[in-house]
Amino acid sequence: MKGAADTYQGRGLIADPIHQYIGFTRPGGIPGEATEQDLIDTSWVQRLRRVPQLQSARWVFPAAEHSRFQHSLGAMHLAGRFAQQLYPSLRAVFHDAPSAPLIEELLRMAGLLHDVGHGPFGHFFDDNFLADYDLTHELLGQRIIREELADVLRDLRRSPSGVFASDERVDPEWICYLMGKTYTQPLESHPRWLPFLKPLLSGVFTADNMDYVLRDAYMCGIAVGPIDVERIMYYSFFSEKGLTLNRAGLGAFVMFLNARYYMYTNVYYHRTTRGIDLHLKEIFRDTMRIAFPFDLRKELHPYLHLTEWTLLEEVGRWHDADDGERRALGAEWRHVLDRRLKWRMSGEEVLDQFEARKGYGFLHSDEVEKRVKSFLPAHLRDFPFKIDMALQDPRPLNPLKMGDRQIYVFDPANGSVSEEPLSEILKYLPGKVAQCRIFAMTHEHDGELAGALKRALNEEPPSIVTNV
Amino acid sequence: MKGAADTYQGRGLIADPIHQYIGFTRPGGIPGEATEQDLIDTSWVQRLRRVPQLQSARWVFPAAEHSRFQHSLGAMHLAGRFAQQLYPSLRAVFHDAPSAPLIEELLRMAGLLHDVGHGPFGHFFDDNFLADYDLTHELLGQRIIREELADVLRDLRRSPSGVFASDERVDPEWICYLMGKTYTQPLESHPRWLPFLKPLLSGVFTADNMDYVLRDAYMCGIAVGPIDVERIMYYSFFSEKGLTLNRAGLGAFVMFLNARYYMYTNVYYHRTTRGIDLHLKEIFRDTMRIAFPFDLRKELHPYLHLTEWTLLEEVGRWHDADDGERRALGAEWRHVLDRRLKWRMSGEEVLDQFEARKGYGFLHSDEVEKRVKSFLPAHLRDFPFKIDMALQDPRPLNPLKMGDRQIYVFDPANGSVSEEPLSEILKYLPGKVAQCRIFAMTHEHDGELAGALKRALNEEPPSIVTNV
Amino acid sequence: MKGAADTYQGRGLIADPIHQYIGFTRPGGIPGEATEQDLIDTSWVQRLRRVPQLQSARWVFPAAEHSRFQHSLGAMHLAGRFAQQLYPSLRAVFHDAPSAPLIEELLRMAGLLHDVGHGPFGHFFDDNFLADYDLTHELLGQRIIREELADVLRDLRRSPSGVFASDERVDPEWICYLMGKTYTQPLESHPRWLPFLKPLLSGVFTADNMDYVLRDAYMCGIAVGPIDVERIMYYSFFSEKGLTLNRAGLGAFVMFLNARYYMYTNVYYHRTTRGIDLHLKEIFRDTMRIAFPFDLRKELHPYLHLTEWTLLEEVGRWHDADDGERRALGAEWRHVLDRRLKWRMSGEEVLDQFEARKGYGFLHSDEVEKRVKSFLPAHLRDFPFKIDMALQDPRPLNPLKMGDRQIYVFDPANGSVSEEPLSEILKYLPGKVAQCRIFAMTHEHDGELAGALKRALNEEPPSIVTNV
Amino acid sequence: MKGAADTYQGRGLIADPIHQYIGFTRPGGIPGEATEQDLIDTSWVQRLRRVPQLQSARWVFPAAEHSRFQHSLGAMHLAGRFAQQLYPSLRAVFHDAPSAPLIEELLRMAGLLHDVGHGPFGHFFDDNFLADYDLTHELLGQRIIREELADVLRDLRRSPSGVFASDERVDPEWICYLMGKTYTQPLESHPRWLPFLKPLLSGVFTADNMDYVLRDAYMCGIAVGPIDVERIMYYSFFSEKGLTLNRAGLGAFVMFLNARYYMYTNVYYHRTTRGIDLHLKEIFRDTMRIAFPFDLRKELHPYLHLTEWTLLEEVGRWHDADDGERRALGAEWRHVLDRRLKWRMSGEEVLDQFEARKGYGFLHSDEVEKRVKSFLPAHLRDFPFKIDMALQDPRPLNPLKMGDRQIYVFDPANGSVSEEPLSEILKYLPGKVAQCRIFAMTHEHDGELAGALKRALNEEPPSIVTNV
Repeated sequence: MKGAADTYQGRGLIADPIHQYIGFTRPGGIPGEATEQDLIDTSWVQRLRRVPQLQSARWVFPAAEHSRFQHSLGAMHLAGRFAQQLYPSLRAVFHDAPSAPLIEELLRMAGLLHDVGHGPFGHFFDDNFLADYDLTHELLGQRIIREELADVLRDLRRSPSGVFASDERVDPEWICYLMGKTYTQPLESHPRWLPFLKPLLSGVFTADNMDYVLRDAYMCGIAVGPIDVERIMYYSFFSEKGLTLNRAGLGAFVMFLNARYYMYTNVYYHRTTRGIDLHLKEIFRDTMRIAFPFDLRKELHPYLHLTEWTLLEEVGRWHDADDGERRALGAEWRHVLDRRLKWRMSGEEVLDQFEARKGYGFLHSDEVEKRVKSFLPAHLRDFPFKIDMALQDPRPLNPLKMGDRQIYVFDPANGSVSEEPLSEILKYLPGKVAQCRIFAMTHEHDGELAGALKRALNEEPPSIVTNV
Repeated sequence: MKGAADTYQGRGLIADPIHQYIGFTRPGGIPGEATEQDLIDTSWVQRLRRVPQLQSARWVFPAAEHSRFQHSLGAMHLAGRFAQQLYPSLRAVFHDAPSAPLIEELLRMAGLLHDVGHGPFGHFFDDNFLADYDLTHELLGQRIIREELADVLRDLRRSPSGVFASDERVDPEWICYLMGKTYTQPLESHPRWLPFLKPLLSGVFTADNMDYVLRDAYMCGIAVGPIDVERIMYYSFFSEKGLTLNRAGLGAFVMFLNARYYMYTNVYYHRTTRGIDLHLKEIFRDTMRIAFPFDLRKELHPYLHLTEWTLLEEVGRWHDADDGERRALGAEWRHVLDRRLKWRMSGEEVLDQFEARKGYGFLHSDEVEKRVKSFLPAHLRDFPFKIDMALQDPRPLNPLKMGDRQIYVFDPANGSVSEEPLSEILKYLPGKVAQCRIFAMTHEHDGELAGALKRALNEEPPSIVTNV
Repeated sequence: MKGAADTYQGRGLIADPIHQYIGFTRPGGIPGEATEQDLIDTSWVQRLRRVPQLQSARWVFPAAEHSRFQHSLGAMHLAGRFAQQLYPSLRAVFHDAPSAPLIEELLRMAGLLHDVGHGPFGHFFDDNFLADYDLTHELLGQRIIREELADVLRDLRRSPSGVFASDERVDPEWICYLMGKTYTQPLESHPRWLPFLKPLLSGVFTADNMDYVLRDAYMCGIAVGPIDVERIMYYSFFSEKGLTLNRAGLGAFVMFLNARYYMYTNVYYHRTTRGIDLHLKEIFRDTMRIAFPFDLRKELHPYLHLTEWTLLEEVGRWHDADDGERRALGAEWRHVLDRRLKWRMSGEEVLDQFEARKGYGFLHSDEVEKRVKSFLPAHLRDFPFKIDMALQDPRPLNPLKMGDRQIYVFDPANGSVSEEPLSEILKYLPGKVAQCRIFAMTHEHDGELAGALKRALNEEPPSIVTNV
Repeated sequence: MKGAADTYQGRGLIADPIHQYIGFTRPGGIPGEATEQDLIDTSWVQRLRRVPQLQSARWVFPAAEHSRFQHSLGAMHLAGRFAQQLYPSLRAVFHDAPSAPLIEELLRMAGLLHDVGHGPFGHFFDDNFLADYDLTHELLGQRIIREELADVLRDLRRSPSGVFASDERVDPEWICYLMGKTYTQPLESHPRWLPFLKPLLSGVFTADNMDYVLRDAYMCGIAVGPIDVERIMYYSFFSEKGLTLNRAGLGAFVMFLNARYYMYTNVYYHRTTRGIDLHLKEIFRDTMRIAFPFDLRKELHPYLHLTEWTLLEEVGRWHDADDGERRALGAEWRHVLDRRLKWRMSGEEVLDQFEARKGYGFLHSDEVEKRVKSFLPAHLRDFPFKIDMALQDPRPLNPLKMGDRQIYVFDPANGSVSEEPLSEILKYLPGKVAQCRIFAMTHEHDGELAGALKRALNEEPPSIVTNV
């Protein structure tokens, strides 16, 4: 049908509560091509449906049950909208930049796949399992892209808004570069415009974090407000230095950082969530040894079946296993699954840092623990407690030194572009924050524990604790 | 600044609660051009700030204080988004269609100006003032466009998304044709593609009504929406027959009609609003004779200063005027302004019609009044009451005969395009509805009045009322 | 602390995206009492976190990942708000009604527990598994309440807004009566006011369906609008006949029914969702025989570990099982899990019924299938296809005969209460709707299949199909 | 009708986009009483419909057309919700506190009437007209309450949630005390609990500012909210010290302050808005002398007809007045009305102050102007420019010294109540901010003007500017 074909052939829509509709390419366009739908329907991407976005937080925010799958679609969509906004200026800076559809598709794929390596319990899994193998979810993701998805990626021929120029292809390696913190230098062989795109996936305002702040808040029912993503995007462009924000968008940008900060403080690092994580830490490595006896450095495929669903359902049955070890671990997991909290917060202090200082940093939790012990009254010396340091970076500590994720500010009044105004605009937000908390198994001694924590952070410990 | 110029030169954003941001063109693009900002800042468009969108309804919905100015900007925006969605299929049907920016700008201007002829109290003003001069707000609007705004319109050179082809211009006459019910045939000289655009401004789902349903609901605090405008638009295209909806969008389209129906029944035709209008009718012509002693057929300029603000503030002072007539009218207006209601609803019957029938129609309110009188008990024969018929068309009465606003349905399963499926999909909505109400000055006799109204609509009146 | 204790003691808040905050009782109020938190944290209620609300629909609406757990909290909250609104009129009708907190708590518990018996894949599970044992999720839920939760329920002493009168207790049997369609008569021993509460949990606008329509739309990203729950509630009260809607709330009530109708048509019964269910039906009984070899009539406890998570993860591994049957089933499940659709819609007809008619009903899908076969061209006689009838009741077929869920309308103009106005107000919605669809494994013969379906529903089949 | 009367008698609902529905009392309850509807329908309160909430800002945010009338209803509603939340703790602290309905009604009336004295152009009117008579809109409001509304107020007998105790009355003088900054000490005769209520109307989070931040953002289409008003309210109570926030609400409180700060910086003090105000300042006093030749200290009644509508329509006609002075002023007003901006921003510097310091404060705009002149190059010495200082207090400069609006923080961990934690939680927000801007009539010398402004604020001016 004339008209219809021009409008719908090879295109589809996915409903989404954050972005309303997410367009995507599907078969029916170019013979022999791969489409976004082919990628989305791979087992590796579908697997993300069973990896919740917010790990332990859903025990506190019951509605936070969304998966990394929907977030990945959202990040794909925002990355594509960034591409549309930024292309004219990219082209102005790089006359040899590829076609708009190629740039759009590259960014969309980086958005779709940036989390493909995540395991159950997200970042906790990185810290308490992958770290033992010198792995991160990013490294796993890059391997999945290279080994499992590269062929499909190379067969893409268009974005939702158009067809690539005839010889253009999305290079899977470009995606690996864009998505990662570990891959901070582009290769020699990479095109010159590629590093300009990096801050859109890894940095202070990205397709990733703009989707997750909006989505997590929406799902949890947290009133941080509809962040003004439209404004931030509209006032983004590429100057010759790189990703640049028009001054007119700075207010919205800071509100976004404030909202993200609020989400960290109140949701991601909610005291109950962190208490559950303390409990999980005690049993996670032993659990994984039994539940996932594979070495991911050697074989990748078992990972396809390692999700939060597998893991929780498996451990949920251990409490009446024959095997004693399983039974013991299962009893602990039962507590978690039925929300019977082991560790409860007894006190909290918030630390912050506004500027980089040589050799300076927050105390490590082990050190704080030692100090707290020294300040506890004698009868509590053996009272079990835990120190938890929840660390976040509400903004770059030094906004003038952001490395490969540096952004810039454009002042239309005088036409200048520089990083300088970031210092001024960001100065009301701390660069680093630590929520330092003390947890115990009862609330009985909260007063004494909270007091000792306060002293531990404010006073030097008695330098000589025994008679000389 | 390279990059910045490519992104922001000659463009601006207006914040809007319904569409978030409305882009527009402003000076700085092409030397000598006129821009949308020039049009928006004319006295004629600015005047709409002082013509509220919802006339008497704001005495019932206190938050409904928005003007036709913001609605006009919203209609401009939606019309432009329609253009972007529809252009590929327009071009597929008409290979000689003008450039995308020209089509976009034409539709945007028709959206911006479709209400420019409205006076104080909107449609009430048409019925109770303009009608006496054989005028309508549309005829006035067309005159304003031709006599006052045509020069600026002809100097436009681009839309927010690009520059016209070099010889293209927006013809003010096209706008007059698109906006009006009174101008149902395009001129011989008009391009063939022009009538295809008409249903976007005048018909069953238009840039106009999609904006006002959303906006009025938002402002009143009426929970009818968010209507799924995105879906309706995405599934709209031009087939060779004209404006066509993909079947996948029919559900959203019907929900939109339902929401519009709800707005008419509960807001625009709220019983208290209609009661206030009954009161206004009694004093409006006399008021206008004093407050606006001009003949709009002869001179247009006084109209620039005739707004709801002027009118209400003037009559608000009449209650202590020296002149007796002003004083009498002023006393009535004082009642309206302080919300002391004269006419209160005593009863209501809802009439509906699903299909066109030859020679058939709802009774006229005069006829109903006569019948009611004949059914009232003797002691109430002289009791003052009013009959009000609030008429609406929730959907085209005959969806297969919509004239120059006909729309079509595309069935992707078999590739067919026709108007037939409209009958099926629209059958749950009545084609015409009349809220027939009886009003009195007290609630004392509500039972008897409501009873008489019911009989008046259900029984034939005694056929011979006097002895023969 | 004076003041603080009076405000927070024994109370808590849960964040929720639909209702913002849901208050609940928790330990710290009355010594020895059970609280809502105790119930929420039981394994049976926590289990609902692993039973998604929307079964197969999330393969179409990726964001629809919410569980019955959050819906149950929402239904609890709405039920409690109904209690607050309705108590004054309940008390006016029944002078011996118990205290407001008791009524509130009874309704909240009925809301919390109404879905506690649901299994994986919700209603599909009822039809394709429980039915074989003459069970329903309601019967299971009632058993869980009686056998597992009754002790805790009996120990409740207060609602979030106050303490029960001293001798009052929530009777678990009352909850069983309120939640069920199967238990339509109250017991002799039940209090007279109890049946008045039933339509709040089982009927046309309930704490259950008002939460799920809002929540499912919110989560899917379906713009049906924020239903005006506030208005519907405010205009609800108990007359001497039972649950009554003030006329002023009828418009909002009908909009709610429209929204629910839209959700059924477009989400719950989305063509792709139904196609997946057709596929699941082919393998579900065999799957369950292996995965859940228990008889729920005999033992209830295994049900604690039967969730959608267990089931999907188990079958997700079967495709490389040693056992042949598992492997075969696993291969089918793999298709489902990776969204490789087996059955695709070839055509659809919508049937509706506005009034009850003796002996009349929609054709059964088996009958339709037979007829379709008779209308198919010879070469397609063996072409595999499926007929699916998706049935819904957008409103009571006969609004004047709703049995124990009857509601009434109050007309403030004349003080009357009756069910009559329901007929008028509901007449634009059909009473029963069937989306009758034909599915095949390819789109190759869509035209012929759709044609045969149309004829099958509109023409009598050839009455004699073989030679006599 | 039994049941109905108990639910609806003497009560009504107003639809509102911010709070959904606002309940109010209306006639039909107690014989002889006055109700909220009587107050709302007075000419003084209805007058607020013609006083826009956002004065010049609507020339920048076209949708910001809402009036102080709807805001007053919103503030009434929030004040009443505060009353419901706070009553139990008020009663715990003051055993002789009056009935809950009396407290609710007192706060609602203070919310409804807090802006009743406002004139056209809001705070601008205070500064550029009332100040010349030593008046403020608060003083006028108090006079309107005492002289015009006191009788109605004294006849109130109930709030929407119940009837006062038999001898209780709302004392209009209490309202005057609560609403004002100028009346900082309660009278000897005032009840002891009265000052506890003051921070709810005048302070850092109030029924007033919580409504206006939400409403202005909603109407402008500014994505700052929804602010978590529910959370802030739930965590508010009265301790023995006064209005107290539970620590659990501090995060939401800070987010609210951030949103308010954002609204000031980006909306209320938008550069274009302030530029319009600079222009208005040049003509306002002369305009008022002609348009409103009354002394409000002597006669109050003319004020009833002084609204933004009167004023703008009057001056809108002056440009073709016979009288020369009117004509000259009218020409200037024409510029404003048609948005032809006289003053455009050439540069901006933001100043902030975090702590109170003796004898320290931002420079006055006159002083800045002088300094700028001294830093301008010679050829611009006579170039016309304006300095504008837009001052705001994002939070109390010294959170420990808030006087009669002091609030406190409750730490549930240790049961303490004090003002100390405010310092910690508020430290990321500046206490005072000045947006210092330089405006000129063209953008020609923006660079030089901006440079001179920067120097003027950072360097001491040459101390001796002429030879000695």
